[in-house]
Amino acid sequence: MRVLCYGEILLRLAAPGRELLLQTPRLDVTVAGAEANVAVALSSFGHDARMLSVVPDTALGRAAIGELRRHGVDTRGMKFGPGRMGLYFLTHGAVRRPSEIIYDRADSAFARSPEACALNEHLSEADWFHISGVTPALGPASAAAAIAAVRAAQDKGVPVSFDGNFRTKLWESWRSDAPAILRQMFEHADILFGDDRDIALVLNKNFGNGSAEQRRERAAAAAFEAFPRLKRIAATIRVQHSVDNHELGAVMYTRSQVQTVAAVELSSIVDRVGTGDAFAAGVLHGLLTDEVDREALKFGLAATCLKHSIQGDFLTLSVADVRAAMANEGLDVRR
Amino acid sequence: MRVLCYGEILLRLAAPGRELLLQTPRLDVTVAGAEANVAVALSSFGHDARMLSVVPDTALGRAAIGELRRHGVDTRGMKFGPGRMGLYFLTHGAVRRPSEIIYDRADSAFARSPEACALNEHLSEADWFHISGVTPALGPASAAAAIAAVRAAQDKGVPVSFDGNFRTKLWESWRSDAPAILRQMFEHADILFGDDRDIALVLNKNFGNGSAEQRRERAAAAAFEAFPRLKRIAATIRVQHSVDNHELGAVMYTRSQVQTVAAVELSSIVDRVGTGDAFAAGVLHGLLTDEVDREALKFGLAATCLKHSIQGDFLTLSVADVRAAMANEGLDVRR
Amino acid sequence: MRVLCYGEILLRLAAPGRELLLQTPRLDVTVAGAEANVAVALSSFGHDARMLSVVPDTALGRAAIGELRRHGVDTRGMKFGPGRMGLYFLTHGAVRRPSEIIYDRADSAFARSPEACALNEHLSEADWFHISGVTPALGPASAAAAIAAVRAAQDKGVPVSFDGNFRTKLWESWRSDAPAILRQMFEHADILFGDDRDIALVLNKNFGNGSAEQRRERAAAAAFEAFPRLKRIAATIRVQHSVDNHELGAVMYTRSQVQTVAAVELSSIVDRVGTGDAFAAGVLHGLLTDEVDREALKFGLAATCLKHSIQGDFLTLSVADVRAAMANEGLDVRR
Amino acid sequence: MRVLCYGEILLRLAAPGRELLLQTPRLDVTVAGAEANVAVALSSFGHDARMLSVVPDTALGRAAIGELRRHGVDTRGMKFGPGRMGLYFLTHGAVRRPSEIIYDRADSAFARSPEACALNEHLSEADWFHISGVTPALGPASAAAAIAAVRAAQDKGVPVSFDGNFRTKLWESWRSDAPAILRQMFEHADILFGDDRDIALVLNKNFGNGSAEQRRERAAAAAFEAFPRLKRIAATIRVQHSVDNHELGAVMYTRSQVQTVAAVELSSIVDRVGTGDAFAAGVLHGLLTDEVDREALKFGLAATCLKHSIQGDFLTLSVADVRAAMANEGLDVRR
Amino acid sequence: MRVLCYGEILLRLAAPGRELLLQTPRLDVTVAGAEANVAVALSSFGHDARMLSVVPDTALGRAAIGELRRHGVDTRGMKFGPGRMGLYFLTHGAVRRPSEIIYDRADSAFARSPEACALNEHLSEADWFHISGVTPALGPASAAAAIAAVRAAQDKGVPVSFDGNFRTKLWESWRSDAPAILRQMFEHADILFGDDRDIALVLNKNFGNGSAEQRRERAAAAAFEAFPRLKRIAATIRVQHSVDNHELGAVMYTRSQVQTVAAVELSSIVDRVGTGDAFAAGVLHGLLTDEVDREALKFGLAATCLKHSIQGDFLTLSVADVRAAMANEGLDVRR
Amino acid sequence: MRVLCYGEILLRLAAPGRELLLQTPRLDVTVAGAEANVAVALSSFGHDARMLSVVPDTALGRAAIGELRRHGVDTRGMKFGPGRMGLYFLTHGAVRRPSEIIYDRADSAFARSPEACALNEHLSEADWFHISGVTPALGPASAAAAIAAVRAAQDKGVPVSFDGNFRTKLWESWRSDAPAILRQMFEHADILFGDDRDIALVLNKNFGNGSAEQRRERAAAAAFEAFPRLKRIAATIRVQHSVDNHELGAVMYTRSQVQTVAAVELSSIVDRVGTGDAFAAGVLHGLLTDEVDREALKFGLAATCLKHSIQGDFLTLSVADVRAAMANEGLDVRR
Repeated sequence: MRVLCYGEILLRLAAPGRELLLQTPRLDVTVAGAEANVAVALSSFGHDARMLSVVPDTALGRAAIGELRRHGVDTRGMKFGPGRMGLYFLTHGAVRRPSEIIYDRADSAFARSPEACALNEHLSEADWFHISGVTPALGPASAAAAIAAVRAAQDKGVPVSFDGNFRTKLWESWRSDAPAILRQMFEHADILFGDDRDIALVLNKNFGNGSAEQRRERAAAAAFEAFPRLKRIAATIRVQHSVDNHELGAVMYTRSQVQTVAAVELSSIVDRVGTGDAFAAGVLHGLLTDEVDREALKFGLAATCLKHSIQGDFLTLSVADVRAAMANEGLDVRR
Repeated sequence: MRVLCYGEILLRLAAPGRELLLQTPRLDVTVAGAEANVAVALSSFGHDARMLSVVPDTALGRAAIGELRRHGVDTRGMKFGPGRMGLYFLTHGAVRRPSEIIYDRADSAFARSPEACALNEHLSEADWFHISGVTPALGPASAAAAIAAVRAAQDKGVPVSFDGNFRTKLWESWRSDAPAILRQMFEHADILFGDDRDIALVLNKNFGNGSAEQRRERAAAAAFEAFPRLKRIAATIRVQHSVDNHELGAVMYTRSQVQTVAAVELSSIVDRVGTGDAFAAGVLHGLLTDEVDREALKFGLAATCLKHSIQGDFLTLSVADVRAAMANEGLDVRR
Repeated sequence: MRVLCYGEILLRLAAPGRELLLQTPRLDVTVAGAEANVAVALSSFGHDARMLSVVPDTALGRAAIGELRRHGVDTRGMKFGPGRMGLYFLTHGAVRRPSEIIYDRADSAFARSPEACALNEHLSEADWFHISGVTPALGPASAAAAIAAVRAAQDKGVPVSFDGNFRTKLWESWRSDAPAILRQMFEHADILFGDDRDIALVLNKNFGNGSAEQRRERAAAAAFEAFPRLKRIAATIRVQHSVDNHELGAVMYTRSQVQTVAAVELSSIVDRVGTGDAFAAGVLHGLLTDEVDREALKFGLAATCLKHSIQGDFLTLSVADVRAAMANEGLDVRR
Repeated sequence: MRVLCYGEILLRLAAPGRELLLQTPRLDVTVAGAEANVAVALSSFGHDARMLSVVPDTALGRAAIGELRRHGVDTRGMKFGPGRMGLYFLTHGAVRRPSEIIYDRADSAFARSPEACALNEHLSEADWFHISGVTPALGPASAAAAIAAVRAAQDKGVPVSFDGNFRTKLWESWRSDAPAILRQMFEHADILFGDDRDIALVLNKNFGNGSAEQRRERAAAAAFEAFPRLKRIAATIRVQHSVDNHELGAVMYTRSQVQTVAAVELSSIVDRVGTGDAFAAGVLHGLLTDEVDREALKFGLAATCLKHSIQGDFLTLSVADVRAAMANEGLDVRR
Repeated sequence: MRVLCYGEILLRLAAPGRELLLQTPRLDVTVAGAEANVAVALSSFGHDARMLSVVPDTALGRAAIGELRRHGVDTRGMKFGPGRMGLYFLTHGAVRRPSEIIYDRADSAFARSPEACALNEHLSEADWFHISGVTPALGPASAAAAIAAVRAAQDKGVPVSFDGNFRTKLWESWRSDAPAILRQMFEHADILFGDDRDIALVLNKNFGNGSAEQRRERAAAAAFEAFPRLKRIAATIRVQHSVDNHELGAVMYTRSQVQTVAAVELSSIVDRVGTGDAFAAGVLHGLLTDEVDREALKFGLAATCLKHSIQGDFLTLSVADVRAAMANEGLDVRR
Repeated sequence: MRVLCYGEILLRLAAPGRELLLQTPRLDVTVAGAEANVAVALSSFGHDARMLSVVPDTALGRAAIGELRRHGVDTRGMKFGPGRMGLYFLTHGAVRRPSEIIYDRADSAFARSPEACALNEHLSEADWFHISGVTPALGPASAAAAIAAVRAAQDKGVPVSFDGNFRTKLWESWRSDAPAILRQMFEHADILFGDDRDIALVLNKNFGNGSAEQRRERAAAAAFEAFPRLKRIAATIRVQHSVDNHELGAVMYTRSQVQTVAAVELSSIVDRVGTGDAFAAGVLHGLLTDEVDREALKFGLAATCLKHSIQGDFLTLSVADVRAAMANEGLDVRR
């Protein structure tokens, strides 16, 4: 299945290990970006994932394309354009000190010319279209491009998955009306990755004081009512005992059902960043391969859990690796 | 508030990660020293922390001064003198293998000429004086200098905090009478960072077989009786499940009250060294900014917990970082 | 006591930290091999451990010998021969992603000419002979050499310890009859390190559906019946909560008794590889120094627990370190 | 232009910097292989380079494919097969200590099944075919496959470039008749990268005692006579003042002409390995883009010189980078 | 002497060693900026160097300030402001591959609000003012601020040194009139660091076809005529044999004299970036300490030569180190 | 041949690459010491080199012993004793910045108890005794021990080589009379490694204003006259073009002859430290294997040249490697 992923690509510049940023004079660099993360995971799962983005024609932009290619992503939709390479600086947290991200992505080549990707040409060859809430959050041009993209996908009959990925700082960096823009993204989505907070923001509703489960259910119901095209809403449910030790479950709503997968303990986490994208990619893999919802959700959760063991934003494991985790094939050394 | 910190500065030469010492041929170097650690933390909290010490006029001594300066410590009280740069070698423990420190600080420039700092001149500009039990433990010259220092502070009306920091090996490295020397330090202290073992040693008393809580209370009462100037005694309460996973609470006694802060779970600890100094700095920050004792203690414990997430002896986080931890603002990635 | 260890020596090429293999272009190299691991641990415990093996006369083979020598192993039994240096590639697991080993040891110098060590000459100076199930698994030549070796040891009155160490992939790499070959190893062993699965394989028996404890007991009884020379069977009992957090106990059977040591929690494990060899070495140390079985078993378990805190296959701690762990001398920093 | 490159792919495991092998326990890993090096350079020059090879289906083999993909090489001709990943260990020389390579490539997946690439299918889509003397040197299967390959290319009208790349140790590792095998490679080559020693070996002739220039000319003449299909012979001319400082010129013979490019001083060389492949790729680039021979040779030499400044076997610079070097656009920092 | 340095501060993100940018996923980070480089060198020479700049209030901006402080620079003139941290990416060249810099400094906090430094307040405490041609090149705000700065310095009687530092890419990044702006900088300068190309640009003149020496002399004469305040013009004279091996001399013009210092061979250069700033700082040191011009120029050249041996943009050696180099005290190990 | 080497063992803590000391927070650690360097080189050349020294019983001392053992040195003469591990800090120079060493070896275990090695017992099994001028320079105890050692060697008929190795700072660190002490060392030496400056110091003579060659000859003549036991004087002749590029020849005097070996160009030097010890070891190897003086000198110079290409103080190459360099077997990659 050919999946188009459309959004900004970033270099992630991370302090090594659990160091503070610039505590020592070194940064570890990986490639990142919400949609690129999904593209790499889907490619690792054997799909034909094509990334559409714009980067500067410098060693940085070329390195980002090379890294996508290394992981098997189809880069024919990658364009060079004026502007910077988007960056983000990451300090990994530990114990009770949270991780911190400093975005340095303003005026990126993608944010300047999101339309340069010639999306329409690629849509005609696509089986699926994936985009996240980061893309419309980058600025007016990419907000317009994101909305145009999901409309074009709908026009061409290409199903759309949308990952809310709400980032306050990005929306606040320009005169944006996040609820109005996101509402148009929700309207064209077949699948929404997000939870009651995303829905509350868009619908400007408060889902009350009940349990988290009740709030989620009410929000899902409201979303299905407001957005007739929407077929599924999926989210992880995370409890954080400490920065390095979490508990992670998942839930998926359809118009008729609720599927939940029981929480898994994740201790000594290696890297929490990019785990939401791993979830999106895992669930999409299940749905694209015609699995029943529950199996897709289980695959998605297992993929997410595995991502917590891998440095960098990318999940680069195979379907077999994820299935082994799902089947509890054991945690001991494999020789 | 201007705080003087007086003591030896060391280079810490640590095996990388969880390696054994010289398992691979590399050492990670940071600057350390009980009082320097307090100075850096106080500077990070926005205070005017002035370090008084003596180092050799070599690339090593200059690097140590530069590192203090980097963290905003006032280094006008730093002197060059004959003698070595004090060193310590650190092997981080793991699982059930304890961390190990090899001191290599004998004959340091500070231990040779602790009086070179011209403490009296600096005291006249100071709001607070901090010293630890490491300083008098280094040898006869620094024991004499430490006692002279707290006396001079008292004479000039500068309040004194004293952190017991009992190090058997240092006291045993020369013909010392630790109880007699420490007693003089206790006599001039307004605040004592220490627990019943420190007090037992100095008073040559056994605080009985009761619970740890009872022993601490009896010891505090005895100390208040023996040392009329003493106003507060503060300590952390640590339970170690494994080398990497602890539980940490705190207690502070005044002549009229006991304040306790409930224990926090610390898992996947990054670096336990220097946490006592972070506690002293945190409590001092609270008291120097006129917080009530309980808030000062809570700030101290939160600072200590955060130190466990940072490599090296220094706590370099801001008041805002500590307050966020106190307010439980969440453990998830901050973007 | 002089202990001979006989088997293949490998270079272990590991991805750094918790990285995937070749995620970044660097490998950390250490020396390994089941019997070499035992030799290094025994040498660290103060024994005269002599390694018998064959390596190529290249920088790789010479480095392996040098590393053994560094840890005090007697390398007079090391020979150069034609063939490759055995390698294995290691990816450390994390969270719920298991560690993975890729063997690349076919056609090693040892596997080609295991007989080059002139074992018989060395046996006459030996107090003990140790070998693992990896040696006969490497191929027909080393299977024959392994059987010849234990026979020769028995002939010369040198007691034999045999560590099952069953590795499916090695046995499947040639036309082997593992049960038949291993049976001959069991026949000449005084001590067997292994559990009911090893015994089941060799005796082609199923030890039933009872509890793990019952299966182990039945298997031990069957082994003692089948192998009259066998005096002790020892094994660790491992429960894995996650890749980085285990629980580890131990059991030892003699013809008359069962000794068990209660499980210890191991959290934030550094390196699980080589822990079985640390157990063998620890138990052997106890027996070679005439401790009672229970103390030998406790020493073995403590050594194993400590190995989990050390990178690389080698346990290089001293008897004093292990005794401190046994005595629960505390987990806090030792200064 | 689509160029097929056919041969073994290796992982190069190099001691860092100028260290001896395993002097410190770390190896830097890059992907290599004579034909893969050419493929990467041609891809960097903008050609459609397709690599045909066989690697094991492990993290090692997949990493090698990913790395080729990263550099834009078309990997549709890469197959998984039984056998090892070919390795080589590299110690960089310095001053007057030569670099050393330890091959560990016996029994590689490619050497086992060189025919698995389905070369014929790919040839029908190809404009050029490149192979080196390493491929037939690996063993009887790859010798047969190499000869079959150049024959098939000739049959399909695809021009062939052959790089002598004589490696004594490879030829000596099996019962080979190097001159006879290489003769068949020469017979089908349109371009030969090699010098008088290669030709002397194949023709079993001695080109006399004259100057190096005379020997080269006589050898070229003899080769043109012996191999009617041969159109060009190109070689670098290297003088080594020390391990890190060379002087490098180039020469190309056709049946009617001799072109030489004057030698360039190369000081403080970073990495000499793979420079011959950079030369082949550079000259091929010139010929494939219809440049006159002299320009092709100059481009080849400039590419070769630049390769000496890059770590690893791959030349990954662009045509613009090479042209800038040819045009002497300056050696100062480009901002 | 108190010297004010006014300009943008950058983080330099460099590929390690001689690697290409992102060849491996790591960057080495140092602090840089033409005027900051001068400030650090002057501080290392014992002057009171105060840096005036604006950085974002993030871990990046704070790290930059901390690094200046580490090297003894007075950071009281450092302000936090909105905008990015200026960055530049560096690939070190080698052999015949030039180094490359990718600027990523647009919209930096300094470029946004260069006026935030409250320059006038600092000028009243200053003995000297230094600025480079990078500052006016950043954009209209900093061009205006740079001109205002040199005017204010002149008004307050503070001598001005101006380093041409012409960077085409910066000037081309906005609608700038470089000659007109630079002319105003030249008008207020007491000392100009620059050569005939800088002067030719500003005066829109061609200094003819003579030797380099003649062009420089004619340009100096023209500059002295055009800019009555100008007292000295100093420049290095560089010949590049290869990327790593240069030859470096220096020249200084006054209205009455020409001083030259003979060229020195610089082989195996470690880092060429920042050497121009080392020259400016070295000459300024000489003049600020009342040395005769020739001695100042010799000190400047020696400082510049030493900078080539140090990684990063900063020269952090002492006057004694420079004097030892000037005195040819020997190149052998100092013990 | 069994050679005893007697002296202090140090850890060398070096800034990585060409960095300044503590420019980045990392040190590379190797083992060193003038006599230990000779022992390792002789062991690498196949001799039975036994090191006699004293180190503390800590991880540092044990690591030093382990490292000697790794290189095949017989460590039976290594003792544990009170005192520190001797250290030295190294900054590698570059271009025109000299390397710098900071000694931190005062009060080392060896300097405290040099007599603990029980030298006499070892002498009775020895064929040769080697010691350097560093040993008597450490302090009164080691000066006395050094003199006693060479006397004992003479008494037992064991030939002595003495390497002058004059280190001003060491001699100045205590109330020493260097000429008197060294005179006694010279008196018992069979071979002296040193030049006219060493002899001038001991004999308190000035060898005039002639050429370097003449000074060396006159000094040698004077030494042979003053010290009847002395048979050979050997020295390298070094010219330093820059820190990284030298020219190195060698000379050896006997009572009847002068042998010289022509200078070799050494460019892009990796590590100059320890090269004098490599020369001593190389010449000793030649003499111990009964080569004629000229061959011994050539071997010594070749060994010295090779040492310049190796990081750390140790020369760990084989006789074959040195012979290949002597035979000019080529500088190109060995495959």
